[in-house]
Amino acid sequence: MNVGRRLWVIAEGYIPGGSLHPDDRRLMSHETACILNAGDEDVEISIFVYFSDSEPAGPYRVTVPARRTKHLRMNELDDPAPIPRDTDYASVFVASAPVVVQHTRLDSRDPALALMTTTAYSE
Amino acid sequence: MNVGRRLWVIAEGYIPGGSLHPDDRRLMSHETACILNAGDEDVEISIFVYFSDSEPAGPYRVTVPARRTKHLRMNELDDPAPIPRDTDYASVFVASAPVVVQHTRLDSRDPALALMTTTAYSE
Amino acid sequence: MNVGRRLWVIAEGYIPGGSLHPDDRRLMSHETACILNAGDEDVEISIFVYFSDSEPAGPYRVTVPARRTKHLRMNELDDPAPIPRDTDYASVFVASAPVVVQHTRLDSRDPALALMTTTAYSE
Amino acid sequence: MNVGRRLWVIAEGYIPGGSLHPDDRRLMSHETACILNAGDEDVEISIFVYFSDSEPAGPYRVTVPARRTKHLRMNELDDPAPIPRDTDYASVFVASAPVVVQHTRLDSRDPALALMTTTAYSE
Repeated sequence: MNVGRRLWVIAEGYIPGGSLHPDDRRLMSHETACILNAGDEDVEISIFVYFSDSEPAGPYRVTVPARRTKHLRMNELDDPAPIPRDTDYASVFVASAPVVVQHTRLDSRDPALALMTTTAYSE
Repeated sequence: MNVGRRLWVIAEGYIPGGSLHPDDRRLMSHETACILNAGDEDVEISIFVYFSDSEPAGPYRVTVPARRTKHLRMNELDDPAPIPRDTDYASVFVASAPVVVQHTRLDSRDPALALMTTTAYSE
Repeated sequence: MNVGRRLWVIAEGYIPGGSLHPDDRRLMSHETACILNAGDEDVEISIFVYFSDSEPAGPYRVTVPARRTKHLRMNELDDPAPIPRDTDYASVFVASAPVVVQHTRLDSRDPALALMTTTAYSE
Repeated sequence: MNVGRRLWVIAEGYIPGGSLHPDDRRLMSHETACILNAGDEDVEISIFVYFSDSEPAGPYRVTVPARRTKHLRMNELDDPAPIPRDTDYASVFVASAPVVVQHTRLDSRDPALALMTTTAYSE
């Protein structure tokens, strides 16, 4: 199935610097770009990261295999460099074939989890 | 009233494995696809579920009657098989007539509820 | 300024039955349709409410004056009848001129607030 | 990279009047319009703020430099006048070149954070 678009933007980006669950990957504070490739060919994605006071970083490159979803943790990107924590950023995804991108953040700086999500902007 | 589209995607999917309210259906952790069929004929929906490391599952089939909404709990799908908990997934909805789909998660692993929602991606 | 669309859908609807802040309008559990009329004429809106197991209710009628926003609490609609609490529903907004609709829920059944929001579906 | 649109709307607006973290900018209650200018020229943005019972305020003017994101805190706007707290509002963004806008609120009136986000409405 061929569904989605090739250009996606998440204008909100912020990886909380702390977490009350630093040793539990499920519950530690994180920010995720959930990508679905419903097509029958692997998709190459180039991610460009923008900041408020310095030039953009990237491209970060990820592959989403055919008929797979990848829930990409932005805090696990490390090539060319990790995204700094407690820093405002935004991200642009350029895909080699149509995909769908949804943005989620889990914040566990407090004893109670906070969650937010949105379908990203596409064109 | 004929409103909506026939193809919808929720790229984020994750059913929390735990809950502090396992016996209260309102408060137990769940993930919902809220579907509105505002039309005057029943709509048949085929749901395909994608994972990060295995082939897609489905189709799951649901019917939304004419002039009704169905708040479908993803964790209650069981044919051909339940969606595993604590597992990244994504879902594609193919409808026989226009509908609208909104995605919501309630997470009650902690004493405090966390909520998130978004209009799904459509085309 | 003339901005927006005339048909909007919120497929997710659920007014939590309880609240730890029943006497504080700001903090009691509620569900809101935030409507912006940026135009220079008043806009009449007809709201149709759909359920999972009974015929739709409405139209509920509201007016959003020119150059005003109305943050409409769904739990305060009462003509032709209040929307029942703890009940799945969905809503369709038909406007006489372009508006923008955003959906928000505040849930205060627990000591900690939970929030969610999304731009509604439009066409 | 030239991505986005020139007209954006956030129909939901409400800056919580209180916070348990009044001295920590990261955790005090706030509402943010995250703006990405991925283009190679600075973008001028005029923001118009609408209320439920008075004429609109603005334009507030902000500049987002080329290849930068600005996570604009609505509660820090002060020219022509601050946006009142505990007050329903909505906002329209008119940009001199394409940008992307995402809306986020962090509410820390309670001991636990609550978060919500959505891609704004654009045309």
